[in-house]
Amino acid sequence: MESSSTSPFTLLHRSGECRARCGIVTTPHGQIKTPVFMPVGTQATVKAVTPEELEQLGAQIILGNTYHLFIRPGRELIKQFGGLHSFMNWQKPILTDSGGFQIFSLKKLAKITEEGAAFQSHLDGSKLFLSPEDVVAVETDLGSDIMMVLDTCIPWPASREETENATALTARWARRSKDVKPETGQLLFGIVQGGMYPELRKQAAQELIDIGFDGYALGGLSVGEPKELMYEMTEATVQHLPESHPVYLMGVGTPEDLVESVFRGVDMFDCVMPTRNARNGMLFTSRGRLVIKNSIFKNDQRPPDEKCGCYTCRNYSRAYLRHLFMCREILAYQLNSIHNLHYYCSLMAGMRNAIEEDSFLSFRDTFYAMRDQSSE
Amino acid sequence: MESSSTSPFTLLHRSGECRARCGIVTTPHGQIKTPVFMPVGTQATVKAVTPEELEQLGAQIILGNTYHLFIRPGRELIKQFGGLHSFMNWQKPILTDSGGFQIFSLKKLAKITEEGAAFQSHLDGSKLFLSPEDVVAVETDLGSDIMMVLDTCIPWPASREETENATALTARWARRSKDVKPETGQLLFGIVQGGMYPELRKQAAQELIDIGFDGYALGGLSVGEPKELMYEMTEATVQHLPESHPVYLMGVGTPEDLVESVFRGVDMFDCVMPTRNARNGMLFTSRGRLVIKNSIFKNDQRPPDEKCGCYTCRNYSRAYLRHLFMCREILAYQLNSIHNLHYYCSLMAGMRNAIEEDSFLSFRDTFYAMRDQSSE
Repeated sequence: MESSSTSPFTLLHRSGECRARCGIVTTPHGQIKTPVFMPVGTQATVKAVTPEELEQLGAQIILGNTYHLFIRPGRELIKQFGGLHSFMNWQKPILTDSGGFQIFSLKKLAKITEEGAAFQSHLDGSKLFLSPEDVVAVETDLGSDIMMVLDTCIPWPASREETENATALTARWARRSKDVKPETGQLLFGIVQGGMYPELRKQAAQELIDIGFDGYALGGLSVGEPKELMYEMTEATVQHLPESHPVYLMGVGTPEDLVESVFRGVDMFDCVMPTRNARNGMLFTSRGRLVIKNSIFKNDQRPPDEKCGCYTCRNYSRAYLRHLFMCREILAYQLNSIHNLHYYCSLMAGMRNAIEEDSFLSFRDTFYAMRDQSSE
Repeated sequence: MESSSTSPFTLLHRSGECRARCGIVTTPHGQIKTPVFMPVGTQATVKAVTPEELEQLGAQIILGNTYHLFIRPGRELIKQFGGLHSFMNWQKPILTDSGGFQIFSLKKLAKITEEGAAFQSHLDGSKLFLSPEDVVAVETDLGSDIMMVLDTCIPWPASREETENATALTARWARRSKDVKPETGQLLFGIVQGGMYPELRKQAAQELIDIGFDGYALGGLSVGEPKELMYEMTEATVQHLPESHPVYLMGVGTPEDLVESVFRGVDMFDCVMPTRNARNGMLFTSRGRLVIKNSIFKNDQRPPDEKCGCYTCRNYSRAYLRHLFMCREILAYQLNSIHNLHYYCSLMAGMRNAIEEDSFLSFRDTFYAMRDQSSE
């Protein structure tokens, strides 16, 4: 119906070499430079780091999860605190995932109907229900800067019929979500489904554009499909999205995925990988990955990444991090998380810089060349 | 034999009202104002806090554990790093416990002989041995500022004969430890045993004074005996120690224990309580203890302690801390640990100030009066 006459996105520079671009997304809690990685703070905390540490390592925006926060501590409690920012002591922008993916992950505990999603709490089994309108209302109470609509996530593989039905339902839910968008200045993003069918992706994108959102997300990717298929679907979707609006690839991914997706025109990312892998002792570096418990690091006095300027690399050795990890000391999770998040945020900053200098392809080449070297 | 002609202790002020006193202990890594609480960093980290956070919350010195570090990561590794300070990124003083208490805790896994302690690693069961000389050598390699001698900890209750034998062995070990004290400027403290027998405590103190140490610790207390007996033994020991030297009560204790023991002339303390209780969701406040998972805190927007200026209390509510704890989020352990350690360090600072102003008894009265009020 309505066209996207206003957009929170300001394009700063488009690569002359590929679809990569950099810009600014303006939200109620400030501006975000894109391409951007959003650390995941599912339960009102990015695991094992303080908000001040997040700022210092370069995080511009974090992600919270409507599903989890709805279940615990509940929307009313967070509303009493004036929203998620105040509750968790984070004053920069927050994007809230709608819970579509989490409900999808519940499988047998969830039932999707036209009205919405009925599901059982993963905590106590209590029966709960969220309609698309409920999700926007909860996100409004959370004080989210960027609210994601409720969508239906499609597994891989899925038949064309299953994909068509779920994509159509997502579109109808998107319309209902837009109809209850509050007048608060909070942004609302639509989510493009369409499975692994390019023409369904195109159709889904067009339906969302017709409704009109502040930004467009690619959902239903990184659900087990091969990398090449994910990149193909990203391309097949991004080309049908308006250049005037931010593009967000949900739940992705590895450092390579980020580079490949920025190359294909994506502006925003989130993924648990840097924090989850940190807690499992895996460190991302410019030269590749370190599994810190590896005995080769027992006496290694070097920082995790000699090219890294993060708090962890400035102050601690691989040997000390290995010791902490072997002892299951909480500081291991703290220091590893700081490093990995810094790596992700720095990678994005490097890409922004390369795009501005029109040297993204060269950046990408160097990125891969570095990683072919062994860091061990 | 030799008298304690030099001492690292400078007495600044003695209370006119009781045995409480304040002073300075000078170590290779700087000066410590006493009375002082030493956060416990058993495995080369104070659990869940960074060194910078420790400094900010007022920690002047931390404790490391020779037994644990000897087993993992090993003395050679830490020596390669130039000592514990460099390994763990802490540049203020470190006191290392000798491992006597840990070996005592191993019970069936340990065998004490005249020569030293044979024990099995709690990690892999490997057979290990530490003589009193070995312990000083390991502590020298660790770069400890204050090295504790190996002692034999006596259980409670224990017969007079058992106590006499163990105390005599501790004295012989103390002599052997002193004989191998390095010429590095590192301080060496003796440990007074004597169980719950005042005359054995007196005798043990005199034997250690005759050997001559840089400071004197009270060992074998807080091993299950009633509080009153612990305070009685503290008094019975402290009165026989030289006023010229620092007095350290090992492994103690609650906030009340600290106040009562400073009252009785103790200068130094360590205890796992602030950090361990933090991880169990128990917060120390000026008004008493909060069990943060208690449902009365569900909507409580107040900080843990309205009189506290710590990072946690400046930025977070009881409701948020409860939420984090219920979610088992790592940030719960971080924030609770910062608060509890700040509470302990502030309590010591308050006592130092009161002693200097000759108002320690009034401080103690206020301390108890505050705690009689409910914070809930």
